[in-house]
Amino acid sequence: MAKIGFIGVGNMGGPMARNLITAGHNLKVFDLSEEAVNFIVQSGAERAASVQDAAKEVDIVVTMLPVGGNVREVFLNDGIVAAADPGTLFIDSSTIDVESAAAVHEAASAAGFEMIDAPVSGGTIGADQATLTFMCGGEKAAFDRARPILEDMGKNIVYCGGPGKGQIVKICNNMVAGIANLATVEAFVMGEKLGVDRQVLFDVISTSSGSTWILEKACPMPGPVPASAASNEFKPGFMAKLMLKDLRLSQAASQMAGTPTPLGATATAAYQQHVNNGFGDLDQSSIVKLIEPSDE
Amino acid sequence: MAKIGFIGVGNMGGPMARNLITAGHNLKVFDLSEEAVNFIVQSGAERAASVQDAAKEVDIVVTMLPVGGNVREVFLNDGIVAAADPGTLFIDSSTIDVESAAAVHEAASAAGFEMIDAPVSGGTIGADQATLTFMCGGEKAAFDRARPILEDMGKNIVYCGGPGKGQIVKICNNMVAGIANLATVEAFVMGEKLGVDRQVLFDVISTSSGSTWILEKACPMPGPVPASAASNEFKPGFMAKLMLKDLRLSQAASQMAGTPTPLGATATAAYQQHVNNGFGDLDQSSIVKLIEPSDE
Amino acid sequence: MAKIGFIGVGNMGGPMARNLITAGHNLKVFDLSEEAVNFIVQSGAERAASVQDAAKEVDIVVTMLPVGGNVREVFLNDGIVAAADPGTLFIDSSTIDVESAAAVHEAASAAGFEMIDAPVSGGTIGADQATLTFMCGGEKAAFDRARPILEDMGKNIVYCGGPGKGQIVKICNNMVAGIANLATVEAFVMGEKLGVDRQVLFDVISTSSGSTWILEKACPMPGPVPASAASNEFKPGFMAKLMLKDLRLSQAASQMAGTPTPLGATATAAYQQHVNNGFGDLDQSSIVKLIEPSDE
Amino acid sequence: MAKIGFIGVGNMGGPMARNLITAGHNLKVFDLSEEAVNFIVQSGAERAASVQDAAKEVDIVVTMLPVGGNVREVFLNDGIVAAADPGTLFIDSSTIDVESAAAVHEAASAAGFEMIDAPVSGGTIGADQATLTFMCGGEKAAFDRARPILEDMGKNIVYCGGPGKGQIVKICNNMVAGIANLATVEAFVMGEKLGVDRQVLFDVISTSSGSTWILEKACPMPGPVPASAASNEFKPGFMAKLMLKDLRLSQAASQMAGTPTPLGATATAAYQQHVNNGFGDLDQSSIVKLIEPSDE
Repeated sequence: MAKIGFIGVGNMGGPMARNLITAGHNLKVFDLSEEAVNFIVQSGAERAASVQDAAKEVDIVVTMLPVGGNVREVFLNDGIVAAADPGTLFIDSSTIDVESAAAVHEAASAAGFEMIDAPVSGGTIGADQATLTFMCGGEKAAFDRARPILEDMGKNIVYCGGPGKGQIVKICNNMVAGIANLATVEAFVMGEKLGVDRQVLFDVISTSSGSTWILEKACPMPGPVPASAASNEFKPGFMAKLMLKDLRLSQAASQMAGTPTPLGATATAAYQQHVNNGFGDLDQSSIVKLIEPSDE
Repeated sequence: MAKIGFIGVGNMGGPMARNLITAGHNLKVFDLSEEAVNFIVQSGAERAASVQDAAKEVDIVVTMLPVGGNVREVFLNDGIVAAADPGTLFIDSSTIDVESAAAVHEAASAAGFEMIDAPVSGGTIGADQATLTFMCGGEKAAFDRARPILEDMGKNIVYCGGPGKGQIVKICNNMVAGIANLATVEAFVMGEKLGVDRQVLFDVISTSSGSTWILEKACPMPGPVPASAASNEFKPGFMAKLMLKDLRLSQAASQMAGTPTPLGATATAAYQQHVNNGFGDLDQSSIVKLIEPSDE
Repeated sequence: MAKIGFIGVGNMGGPMARNLITAGHNLKVFDLSEEAVNFIVQSGAERAASVQDAAKEVDIVVTMLPVGGNVREVFLNDGIVAAADPGTLFIDSSTIDVESAAAVHEAASAAGFEMIDAPVSGGTIGADQATLTFMCGGEKAAFDRARPILEDMGKNIVYCGGPGKGQIVKICNNMVAGIANLATVEAFVMGEKLGVDRQVLFDVISTSSGSTWILEKACPMPGPVPASAASNEFKPGFMAKLMLKDLRLSQAASQMAGTPTPLGATATAAYQQHVNNGFGDLDQSSIVKLIEPSDE
Repeated sequence: MAKIGFIGVGNMGGPMARNLITAGHNLKVFDLSEEAVNFIVQSGAERAASVQDAAKEVDIVVTMLPVGGNVREVFLNDGIVAAADPGTLFIDSSTIDVESAAAVHEAASAAGFEMIDAPVSGGTIGADQATLTFMCGGEKAAFDRARPILEDMGKNIVYCGGPGKGQIVKICNNMVAGIANLATVEAFVMGEKLGVDRQVLFDVISTSSGSTWILEKACPMPGPVPASAASNEFKPGFMAKLMLKDLRLSQAASQMAGTPTPLGATATAAYQQHVNNGFGDLDQSSIVKLIEPSDE
């Protein structure tokens, strides 16, 4: 069993840390929210006094933070790269921009540490049930070392290539998912307005060339998939503001790649409108409200 | 066994007609292309002298024509609605605009005929192997009468609602499929340019929230799906110019519905560019050439 | 002085007809709204009993109708082409789709009549003050005959080419104008959110490469142009739903032309959203509400 | 007369520096290209040994560099902020991202220096003829001190507000200009394909609500404006790759602002396609090649 520092124990990090405890690991946790820390301490974790403290005398540090700026702050300057004991493995599960991922990889590597970026998909349910997918980038040896730990928190552990490649794969995937949400909504709202029954649209499209994971598993129209967020008042699930975050990352990645993403760009503008309309905390599928405004 | 007039025996209509012959029906066929008629006559069909002739002394007329204007011409004025014997059932399998579909339904109904619109998906392979999906609109009684005939040409026979509803469902489905093609290409070209291996992108996305029928069955990047058109020099399959046609129908439908389709609109402009660049006869998946121009 | 039938005397047609009376012409007017007819009859026009009646015993018929379907109805079948005396000149000032324009031109020409399409720009103020721009399509001889009449209602009378060319030019112009509105709003909302003063943005952009007629004359941000609709609670001016109508015509024209209009398509979807949000009767410049939702 | 260090004397910086010499100032210049330095040394400038050297014993340092990364490199760490004598005024005329502008302003200010960002519009012709527009951000006192120097290089010297505001205004303006280019091209290509003469489109639109600075001064269709780049084989002028750069900056700014720019996003994707097609060194107006591919 390993000694693990865990930084960021909120909606996602909290249940991930708890699964590590359940698997028998010893955890030291840190979060700016005392409440979040208290919660996981009750499950048996030790409280760290600071991010630096969380990185000391541990085998592995897992970070799960909101944005690239947070990750830079925690890793760089007098952060955990400076504080950690030699031989510590860093696993960054945050979803962040490609540039920040490169910067922290570089700093860790320059200081002699092994590191992987390992952003996840699967949402809070996946975090809770230890069924997350981890998309991992870094040296193969670092990945091999991280894998058993990741398996205690997830189901699919995928090696995507060198440093930062996990982030890139996640961003590519989520860009398509965001587009699929909006595309599905456009088609259904149009079809219904022209007189076709929602269930008919679902039955045909879900078995034809317009079918998508989003439609089948998380249909953004209330009804056809009873367990979907859309069928449950758009309770997340995966919040619209997080989808916007990922779409924005996709546009930054597109600039870095120098490749055009006309649909990605259009979907990003749509989710930005939607979040600005006040719906950021609803599930991503609530984008239907942008295309079909309610009559109230 | 029925006596069936079949108008339009080209790439799609030809194999569909042949499957009806194989099933034991007697066919009278018409097409402006003598070559297309000859081919199906060799399979045992009778040659009709005109569209009107094809509609006489038959139980059912099946039409499979390129655009709404053709369908109006064949049905209206002194066309088959005027020529057919009382009691004839009309099955229009063309993919056409919602307005034309409404116009011919109305004319047929006013003259006392039963009719369904029954556009298909499944491409030339589906036509050949009698595995097409038929999306059917019209009175339920007309659908029930048409169903056994459609089952000789396809596998999924779906009732979508009243007159024109088959067209609407097909257009909705194909709009999402066109978007899925372009979205997939945007993600893969970006991901590869940022250093991720194509197969890795495929393995992760095809099992995650960005997965689509298009990716799994017809991946627009050459390689990951060996049987896809993309892996076979973009030989169609479903030609880019036909995808453009369907996307344009979606934009006309969107105007009729008065609902916004920002992604549908963007995808339409992209396929229009692609076709204008000279690639209309390649498979739809060749849209990758728009996002990643080759170096030659 | 001429004897003129005038069909459609609403917000635009009403003041146009009044200017013809002021110029000394004799008018027979028809409109489905009795109130609209009463208003212009008080100015000295004769009341026509029907569209056909309005077209009889006159030298010229002017039509000013909402959409292509109305124009077809008034001209075709037993409409004014059938009813008018030989030698009557038709002037259609409606803004309609290219196909409908072609259809009525063809019918008029086949029956031996001269005709021009002559859609206008300049809005209700231009109609009132006889400062409209007329964009004219048709035979040159018909244009020459129409010109003196048009000069009584407008300031710029432009010959654009053969039948339908007036419509095409108007649609092209208004597509750019709609895009300019939205583009200006995107830039100003972004600039202000980043801390730049609205007046500074106006002063610089209106004298730089981002300047547009829309910005200078009808700035969609309240303030910089005191006479603009935006500075007057978005009272039209040119209603957002009419801009949507013209943008939709542009998309139909783009399909007919087979040329891509990615920005035109995006602007059309944006105005469709905006109108669906309930703002269709405000001035076009109110599109700012789509990009910067108010906090209430 | 002032002693001025000038860093970056390429296509734009070269003629700007020459105009300062003409106005009687003493210049020390630095550039990575020896050829560029030689050229301006022939006009009477002193050669600086390094960026640091260019910033020593001068009253003012002007920088004119390609991207934000270059500006950071020149200013930060052991760059010119560390090297310059107390009291030196920094004028950064580079067009760069809002974040980099903020970073160098902050560093300069922390070290006690006055600074303005002063990006320009007007292109190489404006640089040559000293008719540039300068959009300036920074403390008012710094602006007042910079103004006489800027007047030796330009015609319109505009104060836009605090640090970085010059960049923001420039980015907002150029986003609209890029959109105007593409919108004009969409309208003209569509109109011509539908049979309207290019000159007629120009005459009407340039005097109507679709008119733009771009159309009047730099019409992207060859012909109507003889002096435009489009009429001269798309020789820049303002290169398409630089328009792409500014559009990309607009998308980064849009992310920072959290406001949607659907047209800005679409135009960015279009210029990215165009540059990837190999046309980056042509004038921005060459975007017509994206919408109307030539037949060759």
